[in-house]
Amino acid sequence: MIAIGIDIGGMSIKGAAVDSNGRVYDKFSMPFVKGEPGEDTIRKLAVLVKEYIASQHLEGKIAGIGIGSPGTLDVDNGIVNYANNLGWNDLPVAKIMQETLPYPVRLTNDANAAALGEAKFGAGKMYETVIMLTLGTGVGGGIIINGKLYEGNQGKGGELGHVVVQVDGEPCSCGRKGCFEAYSSATALIRETKKAMLKNRRSLMWKISPEIELVGGKVVFEGAAQGDKSAIEVLNNYVKYLGEGILNYCNIFRPNVIVLSGGIANAGKPLFDPLNQYLKDRDYGYKRTPEVKIVPAELGYDSGKIGAAALFFK
Amino acid sequence: MIAIGIDIGGMSIKGAAVDSNGRVYDKFSMPFVKGEPGEDTIRKLAVLVKEYIASQHLEGKIAGIGIGSPGTLDVDNGIVNYANNLGWNDLPVAKIMQETLPYPVRLTNDANAAALGEAKFGAGKMYETVIMLTLGTGVGGGIIINGKLYEGNQGKGGELGHVVVQVDGEPCSCGRKGCFEAYSSATALIRETKKAMLKNRRSLMWKISPEIELVGGKVVFEGAAQGDKSAIEVLNNYVKYLGEGILNYCNIFRPNVIVLSGGIANAGKPLFDPLNQYLKDRDYGYKRTPEVKIVPAELGYDSGKIGAAALFFK
Repeated sequence: MIAIGIDIGGMSIKGAAVDSNGRVYDKFSMPFVKGEPGEDTIRKLAVLVKEYIASQHLEGKIAGIGIGSPGTLDVDNGIVNYANNLGWNDLPVAKIMQETLPYPVRLTNDANAAALGEAKFGAGKMYETVIMLTLGTGVGGGIIINGKLYEGNQGKGGELGHVVVQVDGEPCSCGRKGCFEAYSSATALIRETKKAMLKNRRSLMWKISPEIELVGGKVVFEGAAQGDKSAIEVLNNYVKYLGEGILNYCNIFRPNVIVLSGGIANAGKPLFDPLNQYLKDRDYGYKRTPEVKIVPAELGYDSGKIGAAALFFK
Repeated sequence: MIAIGIDIGGMSIKGAAVDSNGRVYDKFSMPFVKGEPGEDTIRKLAVLVKEYIASQHLEGKIAGIGIGSPGTLDVDNGIVNYANNLGWNDLPVAKIMQETLPYPVRLTNDANAAALGEAKFGAGKMYETVIMLTLGTGVGGGIIINGKLYEGNQGKGGELGHVVVQVDGEPCSCGRKGCFEAYSSATALIRETKKAMLKNRRSLMWKISPEIELVGGKVVFEGAAQGDKSAIEVLNNYVKYLGEGILNYCNIFRPNVIVLSGGIANAGKPLFDPLNQYLKDRDYGYKRTPEVKIVPAELGYDSGKIGAAALFFK
């Protein structure tokens, strides 16, 4: 079985044909033109997909077209209700695609698509129940139970970043205060790194990144590796909040595995070692419960495309 | 189809035959004898169930025996790993029952059993995806997705009370700090009521309950109804934490309904009115998402028996 998987982002729209073994065919992409009406963007995308299918000689072999999109979606009707980064409002993506393409079209949240990809063909492929957390600008989440994506009513569940871990805490992009995202996103880590640098002008982190505006997610890891006290403090606090959020998902789902993706997860051992220790010290949330494996994602930028296509696989 | 549903508690063990329409037959019960070896208790229970089945002329008609138990369980093997209230350790409940009874035996967490009962035959019966929260001594939880109980690996998921909503907050019975249970249980409400009374000797709550040791979950509701400022403050704060926890479950699961059970849920309008307002003001967790209905449980003390039996129903 073959499906087209498409990953919509604020910079570009990327896609590929994917087969039910997770094999990715040649990829295609188009730039995302900010300010262009969404209808026009999707019409261009539909033409691109049509040409791509022809160029790959896949006409008649496509089970469907899966699309992962950011924003609030109505998955039942294939509509993007609202996507701030894209400037889209009530855009009937599936309907517009189908004006050009004679295939079923399914829409899902981009974090859900990436999670399904990792669960089926990546870091979660050996496991039944997989939670994925994407630690990027925000914190995205995906829930896969017995190999199937759990999306909730109208596809609006699985918002694992928007779960309050600190009532009255840091303001979150969603309007609530103290969400997991407000402590565990790359944005949060960078915010805390800058705070610590401003508090301690003698921190080694100033040598790593002399211009505070340019501080990224890696500075704190480099600083901690060099033994900088301020960096270690920021990192420990980050691990604590990330750990508490993960323990929450251990207790809620008791999944086999939690997959971490996104920029921060690429830090590797300097993140995973203290994180695993934190979780182990706390019995993975509850005494006498099975360990939950915490692993990095494996599919990189392809997870979204693969997962979107996988909406059509059993 | 008919199954036996059993609800194990620290005071008594209760059960009944239940049919697949949720009809409850005559009930049976036996006292729970504290300090008695668990093996003896279960052997007595098995004899009682055998006699009950005979007295109801149900031999050969029983699909199985479902048991809801407190504690940490190994549901795959029908073992109670550890139940503090019962004094049980690694008790192979299913195996002992089957020495006397020729039926399959399934074990699940008592909160899960109650949730399944409410989801199938009570307040959640019209809905596909149901979350139940039991606000009692602790906070129990149950997750029903498309009519099926979600238990997690080894049946150790669904611990919805043991999810941190306040990092470094109030100590919780589970060993973590700041769990939802530590703010939303009856125990927590009583703790905060007492604190407020000690802080304000002129609170009307002293008239409602002159002896502070005897303060129960109702005092704060009565005080608030009489306009007592301290009581209103405690209640508002309780609703806030309960509301934040519920919003979390809206965002994670986006269920159709969240059923509240347990002593506090019996408070009715004085709890549900401010709670529903709190949730509505916050768009049920996320803008442009479907409302999640918040309803009281309907089956009372029978939910556990009915749900335990329902482990055998499609």
